[in-house]
Amino acid sequence: MAAIKSPLTDAALKVTGDALQGALVDLIDLSLLAKQAHWNLTGRNFKVVHEHLDEVVTLARGGQDDVAERAVAIGVNPDGRARTVADRTAIQQLEAGYLDDDKVVAAVTDILAQIIGRFRERIAATDEPDQVTQDLLIGITAELEKQHWMFQAQT
Amino acid sequence: MAAIKSPLTDAALKVTGDALQGALVDLIDLSLLAKQAHWNLTGRNFKVVHEHLDEVVTLARGGQDDVAERAVAIGVNPDGRARTVADRTAIQQLEAGYLDDDKVVAAVTDILAQIIGRFRERIAATDEPDQVTQDLLIGITAELEKQHWMFQAQT
Amino acid sequence: MAAIKSPLTDAALKVTGDALQGALVDLIDLSLLAKQAHWNLTGRNFKVVHEHLDEVVTLARGGQDDVAERAVAIGVNPDGRARTVADRTAIQQLEAGYLDDDKVVAAVTDILAQIIGRFRERIAATDEPDQVTQDLLIGITAELEKQHWMFQAQT
Amino acid sequence: MAAIKSPLTDAALKVTGDALQGALVDLIDLSLLAKQAHWNLTGRNFKVVHEHLDEVVTLARGGQDDVAERAVAIGVNPDGRARTVADRTAIQQLEAGYLDDDKVVAAVTDILAQIIGRFRERIAATDEPDQVTQDLLIGITAELEKQHWMFQAQT
Amino acid sequence: MAAIKSPLTDAALKVTGDALQGALVDLIDLSLLAKQAHWNLTGRNFKVVHEHLDEVVTLARGGQDDVAERAVAIGVNPDGRARTVADRTAIQQLEAGYLDDDKVVAAVTDILAQIIGRFRERIAATDEPDQVTQDLLIGITAELEKQHWMFQAQT
Amino acid sequence: MAAIKSPLTDAALKVTGDALQGALVDLIDLSLLAKQAHWNLTGRNFKVVHEHLDEVVTLARGGQDDVAERAVAIGVNPDGRARTVADRTAIQQLEAGYLDDDKVVAAVTDILAQIIGRFRERIAATDEPDQVTQDLLIGITAELEKQHWMFQAQT
Amino acid sequence: MAAIKSPLTDAALKVTGDALQGALVDLIDLSLLAKQAHWNLTGRNFKVVHEHLDEVVTLARGGQDDVAERAVAIGVNPDGRARTVADRTAIQQLEAGYLDDDKVVAAVTDILAQIIGRFRERIAATDEPDQVTQDLLIGITAELEKQHWMFQAQT
Amino acid sequence: MAAIKSPLTDAALKVTGDALQGALVDLIDLSLLAKQAHWNLTGRNFKVVHEHLDEVVTLARGGQDDVAERAVAIGVNPDGRARTVADRTAIQQLEAGYLDDDKVVAAVTDILAQIIGRFRERIAATDEPDQVTQDLLIGITAELEKQHWMFQAQT
Amino acid sequence: MAAIKSPLTDAALKVTGDALQGALVDLIDLSLLAKQAHWNLTGRNFKVVHEHLDEVVTLARGGQDDVAERAVAIGVNPDGRARTVADRTAIQQLEAGYLDDDKVVAAVTDILAQIIGRFRERIAATDEPDQVTQDLLIGITAELEKQHWMFQAQT
Amino acid sequence: MAAIKSPLTDAALKVTGDALQGALVDLIDLSLLAKQAHWNLTGRNFKVVHEHLDEVVTLARGGQDDVAERAVAIGVNPDGRARTVADRTAIQQLEAGYLDDDKVVAAVTDILAQIIGRFRERIAATDEPDQVTQDLLIGITAELEKQHWMFQAQT
Amino acid sequence: MAAIKSPLTDAALKVTGDALQGALVDLIDLSLLAKQAHWNLTGRNFKVVHEHLDEVVTLARGGQDDVAERAVAIGVNPDGRARTVADRTAIQQLEAGYLDDDKVVAAVTDILAQIIGRFRERIAATDEPDQVTQDLLIGITAELEKQHWMFQAQT
Amino acid sequence: MAAIKSPLTDAALKVTGDALQGALVDLIDLSLLAKQAHWNLTGRNFKVVHEHLDEVVTLARGGQDDVAERAVAIGVNPDGRARTVADRTAIQQLEAGYLDDDKVVAAVTDILAQIIGRFRERIAATDEPDQVTQDLLIGITAELEKQHWMFQAQT
Repeated sequence: MAAIKSPLTDAALKVTGDALQGALVDLIDLSLLAKQAHWNLTGRNFKVVHEHLDEVVTLARGGQDDVAERAVAIGVNPDGRARTVADRTAIQQLEAGYLDDDKVVAAVTDILAQIIGRFRERIAATDEPDQVTQDLLIGITAELEKQHWMFQAQT
Repeated sequence: MAAIKSPLTDAALKVTGDALQGALVDLIDLSLLAKQAHWNLTGRNFKVVHEHLDEVVTLARGGQDDVAERAVAIGVNPDGRARTVADRTAIQQLEAGYLDDDKVVAAVTDILAQIIGRFRERIAATDEPDQVTQDLLIGITAELEKQHWMFQAQT
Repeated sequence: MAAIKSPLTDAALKVTGDALQGALVDLIDLSLLAKQAHWNLTGRNFKVVHEHLDEVVTLARGGQDDVAERAVAIGVNPDGRARTVADRTAIQQLEAGYLDDDKVVAAVTDILAQIIGRFRERIAATDEPDQVTQDLLIGITAELEKQHWMFQAQT
Repeated sequence: MAAIKSPLTDAALKVTGDALQGALVDLIDLSLLAKQAHWNLTGRNFKVVHEHLDEVVTLARGGQDDVAERAVAIGVNPDGRARTVADRTAIQQLEAGYLDDDKVVAAVTDILAQIIGRFRERIAATDEPDQVTQDLLIGITAELEKQHWMFQAQT
Repeated sequence: MAAIKSPLTDAALKVTGDALQGALVDLIDLSLLAKQAHWNLTGRNFKVVHEHLDEVVTLARGGQDDVAERAVAIGVNPDGRARTVADRTAIQQLEAGYLDDDKVVAAVTDILAQIIGRFRERIAATDEPDQVTQDLLIGITAELEKQHWMFQAQT
Repeated sequence: MAAIKSPLTDAALKVTGDALQGALVDLIDLSLLAKQAHWNLTGRNFKVVHEHLDEVVTLARGGQDDVAERAVAIGVNPDGRARTVADRTAIQQLEAGYLDDDKVVAAVTDILAQIIGRFRERIAATDEPDQVTQDLLIGITAELEKQHWMFQAQT
Repeated sequence: MAAIKSPLTDAALKVTGDALQGALVDLIDLSLLAKQAHWNLTGRNFKVVHEHLDEVVTLARGGQDDVAERAVAIGVNPDGRARTVADRTAIQQLEAGYLDDDKVVAAVTDILAQIIGRFRERIAATDEPDQVTQDLLIGITAELEKQHWMFQAQT
Repeated sequence: MAAIKSPLTDAALKVTGDALQGALVDLIDLSLLAKQAHWNLTGRNFKVVHEHLDEVVTLARGGQDDVAERAVAIGVNPDGRARTVADRTAIQQLEAGYLDDDKVVAAVTDILAQIIGRFRERIAATDEPDQVTQDLLIGITAELEKQHWMFQAQT
Repeated sequence: MAAIKSPLTDAALKVTGDALQGALVDLIDLSLLAKQAHWNLTGRNFKVVHEHLDEVVTLARGGQDDVAERAVAIGVNPDGRARTVADRTAIQQLEAGYLDDDKVVAAVTDILAQIIGRFRERIAATDEPDQVTQDLLIGITAELEKQHWMFQAQT
Repeated sequence: MAAIKSPLTDAALKVTGDALQGALVDLIDLSLLAKQAHWNLTGRNFKVVHEHLDEVVTLARGGQDDVAERAVAIGVNPDGRARTVADRTAIQQLEAGYLDDDKVVAAVTDILAQIIGRFRERIAATDEPDQVTQDLLIGITAELEKQHWMFQAQT
Repeated sequence: MAAIKSPLTDAALKVTGDALQGALVDLIDLSLLAKQAHWNLTGRNFKVVHEHLDEVVTLARGGQDDVAERAVAIGVNPDGRARTVADRTAIQQLEAGYLDDDKVVAAVTDILAQIIGRFRERIAATDEPDQVTQDLLIGITAELEKQHWMFQAQT
Repeated sequence: MAAIKSPLTDAALKVTGDALQGALVDLIDLSLLAKQAHWNLTGRNFKVVHEHLDEVVTLARGGQDDVAERAVAIGVNPDGRARTVADRTAIQQLEAGYLDDDKVVAAVTDILAQIIGRFRERIAATDEPDQVTQDLLIGITAELEKQHWMFQAQT
């Protein structure tokens, strides 16, 4: 099969494709790290933070599907394999072993702030080449910023 | 916080913990690869295989949570970070770019067969040290073997 | 297409396949007989027994699918055709025509007891060759024994 | 208990009862054969046909209950036992073992066509003696003809 | 407002309107009597018969709405007032006070048989003038005959 | 069977039983009249009033069951037969034939006001003999007064 | 693919196919006109009529699918393209621009009356050739006549 | 009634209104053509494509309502009558009669590509005059492009 | 933590607290005994009584939570521990072993009558000190009296 | 329109109307303050208190509707405008800006205690004039006291 | 706790924060006024307008939460207290007492038009500083304009 | 009625019956103690622990029914009366009065650890005599160990 015929020009496709692939790596790694914390958590606020982290997982998994399917819809192949995520992720990793609830809340706040920074750059970058993709990224950013506030409010 | 107090002896814990960590890596990578194929798929059977792969994702994600929470419940820290998965996975990886539906069906059949082989070893290994863990692994294996049959039947 | 590649050895496959095929015939005939009684029932307890029999039908139909799909998942072809069921069933058949509620309760109690006996033999037989199949048979047996108690309690 | 008192004359009862008993055998055997194909299916369209066959099973099981309960409601004992179905069915049986998807689609198309032919005769036969039964048979025939079209469209 | 403009001729309207008004009185009184028995019931089978009677109420209330709305849809005013029902009902009334379960089952069986007799006459009467109404009456009759069988089976 | 043993004294029973029987007649006739208007309604507000009347029917039918079951629970036989309702109802009856929406709204407002007056007397009467019954009557009155306001607001 | 093999004779097929194709055009155009009025409506009863029109849309769309799938099930190709509907519709069209609620109610009443007239002819025409199709048309006619009454009652 | 008072200037209204009316015609004709293919489809992938087309119908019908109600909300009368759609549609029409599944997939891919092109022009056109309308069009375009990818992936 | 600050005077608190603690013991023991009978039941009416007893369990468990939370809401510590219930319950206990259905119905009728007697005393006692508590007790009593009637009606 | 005709005397109406209007102001302001805290909350228990406050909002909004509709049902106009609430509220207001979770829990405990005090006065005041209103106020008080306990238990 | 760290610059924060706070006051007052009208409404269209107003309440309450949580997510404290709303609202207030349905429809149409005007200014103002907030405001404006059309269409 | 006929030998029955009766006492007392803590809890984590305890109640109540019905299904009478539980429970009891959240978490962790110890002994004991019962105990143990981890993680 030939490549999916894109509604975008090549230049627009390059910028938009990069934004989406970057978003995909961010969101997959966010989902893996939120699960890692969900499992290895300890502390007095265990139950609340344990469940709160699954909201982040749900958001990150939903976002993954949206950005990856948007990528292929415009003719770019998303790459969400473990090796790709491990090599390209810009997120500060969690340590192995038990994770104290306060530290998890602080770490997730930081991780979300970093990801939000990159998403805001992607929103700016896609404004010209593809408003449909930009609209999708705005929607995910709104949700990331809401979770960022909620985690930060607990610190 | 001290480690979670385990109901198992140290020897039993070692065997069971290894089985669960191995299962975790298998299931996380299975979910990532099934999504990779879900997104990059092409071919006449696109719609059916696209949706069928999401059944595998659901199964793999549900299994991840079960094995990881079982691990921590017996006092072993599960590790599901991207780097860990990328380095330790024994699953044959998919190539980047478009994936033909027939090849995806064949590849998923093979991947499931490999994982099933390792799960059957884990069932045998946990029979003595922890029947509760074994029962969990048996349940996941039954589902993996059902999916294996369904993918193989299409080849 | 070649046969489904089984995760079991040939010897294990033979024992497990026989257990599953036997279970399939038992469960199909159980569903047909429970429906036969559901329709031709009479007596003061008609409404209760009429509805109770449909619980047995639901259990038997769910079990059919599970054992047949397990069979094919390990590479054995299940056979649930009318002729096969009629020729191989070991269940004592009901007579044609109206069936008195007391007699139905007694007959179903007996039929369930016979089937339970055969399922317990199948549990023992599959312990070595395939614990995944054994776990499935244990689950169905638990439900059959629960219904057996409920019918027997009415006699 | 005496027989259920029928709202029909004896002559009407005979014709109507025969139509319903015939429909019952057709529908039970249809459900058994559709399940047989559901389990032993292979081929590139496995997933779609596998699920499509369960729509036929649902239709056939719902129809069984309706015709059998209609029979007893007018004072005729329905007979849906395995031996009765095996001996009286007019449906061409499937072979044992794996069944190729194309052949299954063709076979189900034929089986439905045969059953529809008999249902149309039953509709004609019951027009005079019992319009209530006729209305039930018309409803089932509409569903059978819809499935027949869907299977035939795939050939 | 002028009368609703009917799609039927005057002659057809007369026959159809009478059939529907008669059915309305039957169904309202059936719902009142089933409730009367539902409340005043006693006996070993209290719980089952108490709930079974509410199935009759549901059937009778659903049928009332259907026949009354059909009447007005063809331009005939349905009359379901208490006085009309009390004066025109042909159903044998229940006595005041406690009602034994066996007697209730017998009485409801008889009442349903009488109503079914009248509905079958209405089906015959509307065959020519309005098949749409006839189809509605056939559907209600099928449900009445199913309940009649179920009550009779308990006697 | 002997009469249901009442938790009330004979005097309390008499007052409470009368209140409940009166409420039953009011509520059954309310449901019949609301349906009569529901069916024979005409006018520009047909759709809204047609559906609004069914809210009254639902309220009246729910109330019937509650008061009748309360009556028998304290040892009094409720009587909800057509003849009893027709003879004892104190509600002003609707005329046969088409009913103009404005007139229906006015009539239902009046009917509800009358019934509310009688329910308030029953609340006062049961205060001493049975607070459980009183609480039930208060609950129904609250709903009747809410509907009364809604109908009156439209006039 | 060869044409779908029909259970009807050629003559029966012609009559039945024409009835179904005519019904399809009526129902598609009804759905388009009801939406046109739904959007351009004004007047004091806007909210009620706006929502009432969507009930007609739902009925018309459900009916379209039923008649078109019935057509193809008996071997006749339904034609529901815009050009076909525009050229063959017998329904009096609505004007462009705002539509007053009273006029919409009157227009829909007329439109439904016309369609009902044609459906009654189709019921008569299919009585002999195909009772299964006739039963479908009777069911749709009942719903159309119910909506006709409801709209007419508001005029 | 006077025209709905618009929050937009006349110039902005003209551009926005044209974009919405154009979108309406595209979406109505898309829904009609998708249904035409849904009904007349044949081929080995019948079941999958048959159901996939209904996803397009759902998308197109939801979009119709959104754009038409947006039009009237800003004071422009949408026109969705059969004649308007037939005369103004720019979509390449399907032929009458049976439609092969491969050709349908190719045709729908093309039709979606054309519609997407026009929607992208409408997004550009409404950027200045009305961002609320633009946001609505962006949302629908995202869904159209997702379906376009899915159909193209099957070719 | 200091005790919950109560909205009641000390005297009112004492009376209300005693009423609630007494109700708690009654309801916990009722739930345990109903379950005991649910499990050890035998007899022809097994199925109906078995399920009926679970309605009592549901009622008793719901009531426990309401009275215990009401107690703590007014500043009184509820005590629902096994030893407390065993020592303070005034309910006649069931014997160990199989329980005949007729005897169970009679015993539950008696147990409910006793509990109702005590609840009526608590309603009287709380009338002055706390109408909010009284209202809660009235609600539970209504449900207990409804179940009492239903069990008594079967004797 | 004339005022809604009240079922109460003028004196009773005055007392009851005042009680309801007072309750309305309390409940609207409670909902506004709970939302204010829901949004501006910070602290380690952010997530739990954030969600707990929404339970209070739900309770307060449900209560508003009930008391306002009760007021108009008895002929008194409820006033829930912002100015009225701001001027008449007796609740201690929260400060602007971030609110620490511990302080919020303490403040909500106090606010609920004050409101409960006023509701208990309203229960006493309406005992004579209108038991239907009193019953409504008792129900809301029970819920307020339950929430009061839950907040106080956290302090 | 320090203030929530904002992803925006101070200048952008000021503009965006003002837009969100203004929107919050508009939406809270809209919900209070819509409820005021919902309760005090009279007139022939009472039922429809009564329910329509609750759609506005739902929209306004949902919007409140979204804008307030967006404000705090970017580091601005929303203020939704009664005094703030009463002092800052720019909405023309409703009078106390009964409100005629026609006047309510006209008043709500005007109120919505005013609020829409202010929301369109906020959309313009936030275009540069924060597209995420702008997207949220666009979404709410679309809903407000839809309700505005619906109310205006009734005038 | 004679005792339920058991599928087990007498020796197997004795061991299995003892295991099930012991499990029943553990689970009933666990449910009572979890409710005791649920009601009398205080402390900053009140809301979370209050709700977490109800998960334990749900688990314990579900387990009770399963083990008791398993007991009677194999012919052993379960005994779950208050006296039996109070006398035979091996669980360390909670004190009366308010319970601090930290102490509750610690106590529940200990209680679960004790129960888990006994369940593991029961799993070992039933391995030979009845694998069906063993499978049930394994399932409950898995859930108990999951809850144990979650409570321990909070300490």
